[in-house]
Formats: sequence, C-alpha cells, structure tokens
Amino acid sequence: MDNFNRQWKLDSFPQGMPIKENWCLEENPIPELGSNQVLAKAVYLSVDPYMRGRISPKQGYAKGVGIGEVMCGGAVAEIVQSNHSEWKEGELIETINFGWQEYAALDTDGLTRVDPNIGPPHAWLSYIGMPGITAWMALNLIGRPSPGETVLVSAASGAVGQIVGQLAKSYHCRAVAVASSEAKLDWCKELGYDVGINYRESANLVSDVRDACPNGIDIYFDNTAGPIHDAAMKNLALNARVIIVGTISLAERFEEPDMGERFLRQILVNRAEVKGFLVFDYFDRYPEARKALAEGARNGDLKFKTDFMEDIESMPEAFLKLLLSQNLGKQLVRTELADRYSE
Amino acid sequence: MDNFNRQWKLDSFPQGMPIKENWCLEENPIPELGSNQVLAKAVYLSVDPYMRGRISPKQGYAKGVGIGEVMCGGAVAEIVQSNHSEWKEGELIETINFGWQEYAALDTDGLTRVDPNIGPPHAWLSYIGMPGITAWMALNLIGRPSPGETVLVSAASGAVGQIVGQLAKSYHCRAVAVASSEAKLDWCKELGYDVGINYRESANLVSDVRDACPNGIDIYFDNTAGPIHDAAMKNLALNARVIIVGTISLAERFEEPDMGERFLRQILVNRAEVKGFLVFDYFDRYPEARKALAEGARNGDLKFKTDFMEDIESMPEAFLKLLLSQNLGKQLVRTELADRYSE
Repeated sequence: MDNFNRQWKLDSFPQGMPIKENWCLEENPIPELGSNQVLAKAVYLSVDPYMRGRISPKQGYAKGVGIGEVMCGGAVAEIVQSNHSEWKEGELIETINFGWQEYAALDTDGLTRVDPNIGPPHAWLSYIGMPGITAWMALNLIGRPSPGETVLVSAASGAVGQIVGQLAKSYHCRAVAVASSEAKLDWCKELGYDVGINYRESANLVSDVRDACPNGIDIYFDNTAGPIHDAAMKNLALNARVIIVGTISLAERFEEPDMGERFLRQILVNRAEVKGFLVFDYFDRYPEARKALAEGARNGDLKFKTDFMEDIESMPEAFLKLLLSQNLGKQLVRTELADRYSE
Repeated sequence: MDNFNRQWKLDSFPQGMPIKENWCLEENPIPELGSNQVLAKAVYLSVDPYMRGRISPKQGYAKGVGIGEVMCGGAVAEIVQSNHSEWKEGELIETINFGWQEYAALDTDGLTRVDPNIGPPHAWLSYIGMPGITAWMALNLIGRPSPGETVLVSAASGAVGQIVGQLAKSYHCRAVAVASSEAKLDWCKELGYDVGINYRESANLVSDVRDACPNGIDIYFDNTAGPIHDAAMKNLALNARVIIVGTISLAERFEEPDMGERFLRQILVNRAEVKGFLVFDYFDRYPEARKALAEGARNGDLKFKTDFMEDIESMPEAFLKLLLSQNLGKQLVRTELADRYSE
C-alpha cells in the first residue's frame, strides 16, 4: 500500500465553465477504517456531467460538494482492507460515493460487487454502469418506445447517448443523433443512428430537427437542455415523451434562471409528457438493466467507446474534456491498478 | 319550430382579449338534414376557456374556427327532427360539436344521450360533462393522488377547479386553491379547499404558494399557466406531477412565444412530470368518470355552482365574462327550452 492518498479537493466554485484551478490535489494520510467499513483503492475513476451540478452553490438533487471537501465521483475500486465480514480483500467494487481520490474508506451499503463475468471492470462505470443503466431505464420506463417512433438524442455519442441510440434501433425506432462534431456523428452512424445533426454547424436547429424528424419527435432524450431542447420542443409529435436526463448546457446558468421559451402550449397541444429522470431512483432495478446491457455487449449487438485518461492527476482535465465535448464515448481515468484488468 | 336559426359567426380574430365585435349574430335558415343526421335545438350552450385557443390563427390541438364560420362550442340540445333510426325526436343529446347557434344538423357519432336519471341536463356540460370529466381524468390518471399529498389548483373555483378540489379532498389530499377574488375563495372554502390564494392580491406568489404548501406541491393542476405556473414550478415536491390542462393566461401570447423561466433544472431535480392533458383523448372512459361524479352529486358529496346567462344573444358576453374571471362556477347560456328541465 502507498503511504499517502492523493485527493482532489474543491478549492473554489466555478464561474460558468470550471477551470483546473477550481480543485487542488493534496497528499493526505490513507484514511482509518471505521467499523464495518472497507478501504478500497481506485482502479477506474469516472467523470460525469452530473458533477457540474454538484459544484454549484445552488441546491441540486444531491448535496453539493463544499469548499475543502473531496470532489464527488464514482469509481471501480479494489478492496485492500476490510472490517466487514461479507467484503473481502481483493474484491472489486463499484460505488458512486468514491470521490476523486486514490483511497476511500467506505460504508458497504451502496457498494456493488463487480463481477467480471458480467462485463469488464471499466464497463461497470460505462455501459453496464450508471450511464448505460440511465439509458436503459429512462428510455424504457419514461420513453416507452414503440416500433416506428422517432427518438431524438442529444449528446448522442456520449456515455448515455451511445447506448440510447442502439436501444432505440433495437426497438425498431428511428434514431436521430445530435452531437458536436463530425467525428462523433460518424461514430453515431456506426452505432446505427439513422441521421445526425451537428449542432455546432447547424444554421437553423429547428428546421434541421424538423428535416430529420419529418413525423415529429415521439421521444426526446434530453441529455443537455439548451438550444437543442428548444428546437426539439418545437418539433414534438402528439403524445411525445420528453425525458430531462441532463441539463449540462445550462451549467453557466445554475445560479440564475434559464430564460427563454417555455413551451406550455406545445406541451398541452401535443399532450406531451416532460419528465425529470434520475437513475438513482431506480437502484433496485439496476441488475435487470445491467443484465440486458451485458448480454447485448456479449452478443456484439451493443457497441461502446471509452475514452481513457491516465492517473488520478488527470481528474480535472478529464472532467473539463467532458464539459468541453472533447471526449468520445464514456470518459474514465485509469489508475496503475487498471493494467491488471481486461478492457 | 322557428323560421330561422340565430348563429354567432367569427367576424375577426381577437388581438389579445376578445371583444364582442369579434363575432356577429346572423339569422339564417334552419339547416337541411343530411342522411343519418339529426336536427337539434339548443337547450344549454357552453362557453369554455379552450374556445380562446380555437379563435387564434395559430395551430392548436384542434382545427380553429375560420372567419365567417359558426363559433365552435358544446351544447345540450333536443332532437327536433331525425333521419337516423336510433335517435328519436324529443331526445336530449350532448355534443361538443354544436356551435354557438340555436339549431344544428349533426352527425350522430360524437353525440351523447343525456340521461336525466344520471344528472340534470345542464350538468352534462358541467360536473358530469367535459369540465367535470377533465377534473376526474386528469387528477386520477396524470395526478395519481395519494393521501397526504398537496394538490395546488389554479382557477380553483372554475368549472374544472371546483371539482378537482373536492376530489382531492376525497382522496385525503391537502387542496390549495388559487383564484381571482375573495368571493371565489369563499366558495373554494365551502368546497373543502384547505387554503386559498388570491393571485390578484398576492404581493409575492412564490412565497404565498410556499406558505400554503410547506411540503411542496405534489400535484399541480394547471388550468391557467402564467404567473401561478411560475410560482408553482418553484415549489415542486420530489416526484411532482404537473398537469397542463389549460393555458388561458397565455391567450394574449398564442401568436408569440411565452417567454420566461423554463424550469428544466426544477423538473430534473424534482423528477417532476409535466404532462399536457386533453380530455377528448379519453372519450371511451367518459362513462366511468360520469358515473363517479354523478354519484358524488347525488350523495351531496360533490358541490358545484353554475353561472347561467339567458338566450343565445348572450354568447359573446358569457364567453368574455369567463375570460375576465367574472363568472362563478361553470358558465352556461340557457335558451327558452331550458325552462322545461330541472336544474
């Protein structure tokens, strides 16, 4: 075991787009274990868009990170010491409550055992982890897709979007991708998306969405909010379902209201359903989603890309890459332990 | 039978609040019957907020009324002549497709037989008709109330709202009324609403709603949109359901976008469901709702107020009274035939 624990702590709240200097890397003693706790060492660390909401002073769906606290985040980690009879040294676990650090002393509720027979360890943070399960739950439970329906997905090549598109196609829907570059849209095409919109190049998002969705949007899987949201809301089909999964494009407005068109008439006229979705509400159904997703991956039906960066030192950079849409697929950070596991 | 048919035709589209001069009253021949049609004479004519959306050039959920066309509207009417073997002279019917006129030649699909044993004829346009059924369907199917939950209702003393509040109380919910006058709030109190907010007198709707809903709003039955909508959206409870039933306060903005705060973070953070509701989508379930509502009225559990005006000449005035919130309870217009029926 190392002699110290590198930890990224929040040093200041970002104004709009975060900068690396909002965090500081500290070397601290490896934490003491409480009773029934386990000490785990990170193998893969995850960065996810939701983290932006946690470093805003404004109230979100979860307690935010305070100044001087370890930055929140999920990880796959190896148990290196255990005070709990049911969890053994050497076991791999996944938890959303790890934080941007090398070692964490963890309570055992909320730990998920990583079974490599279901999928490789990194996948537990990706297509069989929170992003993949978000895609599966939100699309199935809120979207309720039927064959022939049109599914519009923002951040379509991202950790969630890349799964949503493939699931939509497997349900015989028309899948329309919105992404930020041609490289991402090429990947979306490989995934099976029928058509793609590069929102950074679009001169008129409303008409581009209309052209891509000539019968209107039945399911809008909204990973971003922002201008894509507005264009989608103007192209809803009757009985549309709008799933508010992420609002990352509002990141610079978390402290002030997001102003613009409100779409109440469109919601009424189209009898649309707009629903906020948070995957943690469905924790008891994770195994069901994971099983379906893992099976798809084993069959080769489910494709995915993972964007790896190296070492805990990269955490802020990995997160900023994600916020700047510079990653392709699920963004993870590997530690040196990851070399031992298949990817 | 009279020798002519008085009809209100749309003469111009209103700019913002309609004026009486947007319609003109014409005397025309009584229509000829087509095959399988019935000729019916109005007994009660209904004015409803949805009509405002039908006289906007902007596309709504139904075809709008064109200039020179008879104004749309529902009625309870007596069959005075029949070319259809299943519908007899003297029978009372209810239809949404009657129009602001004394006589209508009607196709028989879409006609509902008025059974006075279920409720008095006027009630088929009120608490066992479209407004009551809207209340019952939207609250039960979209609202899904549980005991102890808080239900906020805008236009709480109106044709829909007066039923919603009583249903909410019967489900052991906390019912909070928003209305435009103390007289209406007094009526809401009689109906069982726990607390009321006079939105015209409120200095701060957001905090008044917060005070009235200390645990947040579980179900927001939105009959109006506008400032009440905004105040409600800032006070949602976790897993709130927002039912967009009417947007009458946007009437002046039907031709331009409704701008303001969009509440995507509130929807996400609270996992709220925002759903557009149109009762006509549930036509096959009307008998179920009507039965429940009629039973409540028979038992004396369900109270209601009806605001009657006299004669077809009053149609625009009755409608304007409604739009100006000057009515109390369901607004109807009686014809001389109504004297024959119990109220």
